[in-house]
Amino acid sequence: MKVTFVDFGRHGDERGMLVALEEGRNIPFTIRRVYYLFDTRPHVRRGYHAHRQLKQIMIAVSGSVKVHLDDGCEVTEVTLDSPYRGLLLESMVWREMSEFSSDCVLMVLADQLYDPADYVRDYQEFCTLAKQERKS
Amino acid sequence: MKVTFVDFGRHGDERGMLVALEEGRNIPFTIRRVYYLFDTRPHVRRGYHAHRQLKQIMIAVSGSVKVHLDDGCEVTEVTLDSPYRGLLLESMVWREMSEFSSDCVLMVLADQLYDPADYVRDYQEFCTLAKQERKS
Repeated sequence: MKVTFVDFGRHGDERGMLVALEEGRNIPFTIRRVYYLFDTRPHVRRGYHAHRQLKQIMIAVSGSVKVHLDDGCEVTEVTLDSPYRGLLLESMVWREMSEFSSDCVLMVLADQLYDPADYVRDYQEFCTLAKQERKS
Repeated sequence: MKVTFVDFGRHGDERGMLVALEEGRNIPFTIRRVYYLFDTRPHVRRGYHAHRQLKQIMIAVSGSVKVHLDDGCEVTEVTLDSPYRGLLLESMVWREMSEFSSDCVLMVLADQLYDPADYVRDYQEFCTLAKQERKS
């Protein structure tokens, strides 16, 4: 499956580094929600859902994490380990995150506020919906 | 001077922790820009500016940092060392950040895109403007 990364400019100098994310400039949507996962316990696998509509960008602003992606047709796995690189997740992609490093802070920018109705948490339902979407 | 902190809910469980920031819910403005400072060299002091209009919230999502604040009338210093707590910075506050821990990731949410004209980088000019603002 196609995986889209977004590489961010490096605004660092001799003092340190800075990355800036701006809606309509390097973020292809309106930023309505920002969340971050941290202090994840060892051997934990998180995610296990897809979104019906919501789009997001995931960035490991500290540490590293593996992201398993599944569009209902193909699966792939990517590693996020750079504050300069975001993973763009369109709607209807099943994701599972694993192998969080102990210092991992996984930041996510989303184009929607939290809405439980937007989540697909059952994998079989996800496969059925993804199949229907490909046919339509 | 008055310092406003915003405490965020803790959405953690046995897997790890999660903090969510949402415009109009726990963030009192539209999130148009997100930036993060990291890999700051030891003994560096950053900032040295105020914003004419821009509002922002600073969060140490990893590590810790000291923030010196100055409204042109009073100064104070706060430490940011928790991913659960944001420092709300209204417009016209001079800020300098120092004592970044080596693991510090300082995330900032702002209500405006980057605009160099919004920065006041000269401290004397800042004091003059702040004085005028108090009189008006």
